[in-house]
Amino acid sequence: MLDKNLHVLIVGMGLLGGSYARGLKERGYRVETVTRSQKSLDYALKNGMVDGGAAWPDPRIIGRADVIVLAVYPHVLLEWLRDNQQYCKPGAVITDVTGVKTCVVYEAQAMLRDDVEYIPAHPMAGREVLGVENSDPHIFRGANYIVTPTEKNTPAAIELCEELGRTLGFARISRLSPEKHDEMIGFVSQLTHCIAVALMTCNDDPGLARYTGDSFRDLTRIARINDEMWSELFLDNREALLREIDGFSAELMRLRAMLDEGDREGLRAMMRRSTARREALNKDRVNPEETR
Amino acid sequence: MLDKNLHVLIVGMGLLGGSYARGLKERGYRVETVTRSQKSLDYALKNGMVDGGAAWPDPRIIGRADVIVLAVYPHVLLEWLRDNQQYCKPGAVITDVTGVKTCVVYEAQAMLRDDVEYIPAHPMAGREVLGVENSDPHIFRGANYIVTPTEKNTPAAIELCEELGRTLGFARISRLSPEKHDEMIGFVSQLTHCIAVALMTCNDDPGLARYTGDSFRDLTRIARINDEMWSELFLDNREALLREIDGFSAELMRLRAMLDEGDREGLRAMMRRSTARREALNKDRVNPEETR
Repeated sequence: MLDKNLHVLIVGMGLLGGSYARGLKERGYRVETVTRSQKSLDYALKNGMVDGGAAWPDPRIIGRADVIVLAVYPHVLLEWLRDNQQYCKPGAVITDVTGVKTCVVYEAQAMLRDDVEYIPAHPMAGREVLGVENSDPHIFRGANYIVTPTEKNTPAAIELCEELGRTLGFARISRLSPEKHDEMIGFVSQLTHCIAVALMTCNDDPGLARYTGDSFRDLTRIARINDEMWSELFLDNREALLREIDGFSAELMRLRAMLDEGDREGLRAMMRRSTARREALNKDRVNPEETR
Repeated sequence: MLDKNLHVLIVGMGLLGGSYARGLKERGYRVETVTRSQKSLDYALKNGMVDGGAAWPDPRIIGRADVIVLAVYPHVLLEWLRDNQQYCKPGAVITDVTGVKTCVVYEAQAMLRDDVEYIPAHPMAGREVLGVENSDPHIFRGANYIVTPTEKNTPAAIELCEELGRTLGFARISRLSPEKHDEMIGFVSQLTHCIAVALMTCNDDPGLARYTGDSFRDLTRIARINDEMWSELFLDNREALLREIDGFSAELMRLRAMLDEGDREGLRAMMRRSTARREALNKDRVNPEETR
């Protein structure tokens, strides 16, 4: 568990920032926030999710934090560090929640003061709804928490960042390089969202809904998507995501060719491979939630 | 409700045949079965799912049925009619449960005796598990039941077929031409299975399962697939399915091009369209289950 004497600052009171705040307050930590939205701040204060906060980057609040969690969009993260690192306490450890790493991690570490450390992390949890009013620390239960350290990080900060994940109740704490993280997320999360969006928009027969069943609904659940956030995540991870789209498309074209040629045995072999892998996935089930 | 005096024969005691039998028996109908599997017959008899039956096409059982439900694979359906229509009672109405229509309906009607009528239907319900022991009439609750009549069908037989669907508890009874049905099923059901299989087989990183969350699991749930049945369904509906794969691929390539070109506004517009359509689908929700 994270040391109870540490003061935690959450930057950004959205779904994830709010869930971190609630989770830490429930466990007795002192939590403050700075956020751009007066409304979100008021909600968090009124609901006892934080001990204090400001709707602007108040230097006094920033200056007393030992641990700072940047729960904001990737481009906001870099802006925030540029403008506010001057207020951080010497020795403060900064972490984040963003779903892409390579595009922010190196730039953030390069610009940062020497006496403050940024250790990146990705809590793979979320909901289809947004905002502090939907925040809920139970989304972390059973979920993956991935720390993506670089050569610049110290063992102590990596350990503290993992402690934060354990304290919040994540089931599985892993370490990956920023590059490996982005490749993995390009496949398991971003590619799936691309597929869902394309499936939802490729056919506009209005009578369709009348005949959809579980499979179509399952494949398009994530087609209800936050366009501002996901377009940013896709573009921030463009090269990895393009490779994953191409890999998937090539496989779908292999299936199409077998169908076109009437290659029943080829289709059956592919389906058996698919079935075996899906069953292996079930056995390894840990994570009931993921960033959406 | 279906007339209680009608004798129903279920041909094939698998998941769907068994679910029809249980559903009809629960509502007090007289149900018999002929099936190729002695084991399935024994199970159905032992569990009171049928009043009688045989593990071969017993002419006496076939000859006393007013309504015959062919709950078998498409190619078995045609074989069965060819071999056993001679035993049917004059005036008998035959229906089925197969998920592809064009490839069986016309051939079946062309070969049939003039005093017996075949009215095709597709109950859009199923489970990921197979066999009579997994049969369950509750899978029909909230589901779609589609009748696909041709010019050869009489209003009386169409009505009786729809009554059967209502009696079994389907939420929505529709009529479609066999061609329109196959186009629709190519999109909402077969294309989704192709996508799930390709997604499951396109990447064989063994560390993958460690990081998968809800979206990947949702998109690949149906990647656990009965290769014998689905390869037959895909090949029986080849032309429609090829068109649907091509339509989806073109849309995914549109998304890929926007990503490659950094067209943020284009991506956001596509995501907003996707979100609006998915929300409309939620509002129109009726069917919690579908053929898999």
